[in-house]
Amino acid sequence: MTTDPIPLQVKIIGIGAGSPGHVTADAADALRSVDVFVVADKGAATDELLQVRRAILDRFVPDGGYRFVAVPDPKRGPDAGRDRDEYGAAVRDWHAARADAYAAVLGELPEGTVVGFLVWGDPAFYDSTIRVVDAVATRMPLQVSVFAGISAIQELAAAHHIVLHEIGEPVHITTGRRLAGEWSPDLGTVVVMLDGALACRDLVERAPDLQIHWGAYLGMPQQELRSGRLADVIDELVATRARLREQHGWIMDVYALR
Amino acid sequence: MTTDPIPLQVKIIGIGAGSPGHVTADAADALRSVDVFVVADKGAATDELLQVRRAILDRFVPDGGYRFVAVPDPKRGPDAGRDRDEYGAAVRDWHAARADAYAAVLGELPEGTVVGFLVWGDPAFYDSTIRVVDAVATRMPLQVSVFAGISAIQELAAAHHIVLHEIGEPVHITTGRRLAGEWSPDLGTVVVMLDGALACRDLVERAPDLQIHWGAYLGMPQQELRSGRLADVIDELVATRARLREQHGWIMDVYALR
Ligand SMILES: C[S@@+](CC[C@H](N)C(=O)[O-])C[C@H]1O[C@@H](n2cnc3c(N)ncnc32)[C@H](O)[C@@H]1O
Ligand SMILES: C[S@@+](CC[C@H](N)C(=O)[O-])C[C@H]1O[C@@H](n2cnc3c(N)ncnc32)[C@H](O)[C@@H]1O
Repeated sequence: MTTDPIPLQVKIIGIGAGSPGHVTADAADALRSVDVFVVADKGAATDELLQVRRAILDRFVPDGGYRFVAVPDPKRGPDAGRDRDEYGAAVRDWHAARADAYAAVLGELPEGTVVGFLVWGDPAFYDSTIRVVDAVATRMPLQVSVFAGISAIQELAAAHHIVLHEIGEPVHITTGRRLAGEWSPDLGTVVVMLDGALACRDLVERAPDLQIHWGAYLGMPQQELRSGRLADVIDELVATRARLREQHGWIMDVYALR
Repeated sequence: MTTDPIPLQVKIIGIGAGSPGHVTADAADALRSVDVFVVADKGAATDELLQVRRAILDRFVPDGGYRFVAVPDPKRGPDAGRDRDEYGAAVRDWHAARADAYAAVLGELPEGTVVGFLVWGDPAFYDSTIRVVDAVATRMPLQVSVFAGISAIQELAAAHHIVLHEIGEPVHITTGRRLAGEWSPDLGTVVVMLDGALACRDLVERAPDLQIHWGAYLGMPQQELRSGRLADVIDELVATRARLREQHGWIMDVYALR
């Protein structure tokens, strides 16, 4: 008689978008339960982001007792394709390649190991971990749980002391790539992530009176906030963003328009 | 020579949408710093929601040292008006009445008092606390800070192990009241809150193939999850929701369509 192997327990843990203080009590408990953290080896990832992860583990798992396994990240990322279908297909290919790489690494772990994935912000917003783990789960049995984290969207609102929607109105969350084609006043407040070049510049003619609330490096010591009427602040914002990017070597920013 | 009085410090603290485990480390620190929690006296509020708040304070502020001040909630709430403008106006009147009531209570507190507002979920989504505190701040000097919390939206995604958007696509967050008039496939995933009667019923004819991910009492012991093709599951969902509401005496639910 053979018994089924105990599946790996995979915990996908949202760690907030910049500060160890954003970690929830449940996420902290989950961090303490992990035997092996799987990290994508991105090569070029910025030191600051790694430092936040390390600061989180030092604070919430001071006694250690975990180890790291690095998984080499497949080369071509989500910028491969330009139009919408190509983009989706390129991302899906990349997810499949990642799933193969992860399955190879997880397949080496003893049964019942608790495997942790640290996810920036909330795993529910613009993060591939859940999709990649789903794909791995078609290759081997996994017992998966997900821990929500504070997203950059929420940090933006908290830092500016704003409610995201107007009273009874909607909130629309989208990407810089989609903004110009998609924007309409009917969408309510529009939150833009993954924007490499302040795509809201293209809205100045059409909607100069939009209010923008912008934030970069949210939750981090170098946090920057700006707000105002889009047409009034856009030039300074473009200059500020370029200067900050130069100064720190990288930038992560998000904004809300309404 | 007179010195200016030290303003009240107001902390608007997101406590997550159902479980003490959702409280962040920063929110827990903020809870411990509060002298006086201001609570709206809603009369009919359900016991379970009060119990979650009490459980949070017992867990994160075990030594007490705070007190509560109840503020009577003005009578007519956001359901007063039916159409969109009336609705907005009714909510604004209600906010102004609340601001008066809060200003009267805060005006009695000694200078420098740390005043806490516990906000369900995240203060950035469909909650009036930030707006009411803004209105109070026009009547007296306040030093305000906001702490993001895990929203019911995120709990829904975590419980179902889903990413909210399709790859590179948007997420639209709206209310039951707006859904039927607003829905279009271009919106991406649509998350619906504040829906008293599963307004997605009205989409079954137009979009039977939508997938729904639904959750009620998220984060609580009585949590319920359902998912499936809208046309296949809607009848059972309507029946389930009615049964649960009857059984528990109240219901809070949220869902995502895509
Ligand atoms: C790949 S997405 C990940 C989002 C993440 N899962 C979340 O919930 O915040 C990265 C985008 O999130 C935003 N972002 C993440 N962290 C940020 C921070 N600390 N400050 C400003 N923007 C941030 C930026 O728009 C960035 O392009
Ligand atoms: C007034 S809004 C407050 C939202 C809150 N600020 C948040 O961030 O979750 C109340 C709505 O949130 C949703 N909600 C809040 N808590 C929930 C829970 N535990 N389970 C399911 N839905 C919930 C429901 O759609 C409900 O109608």
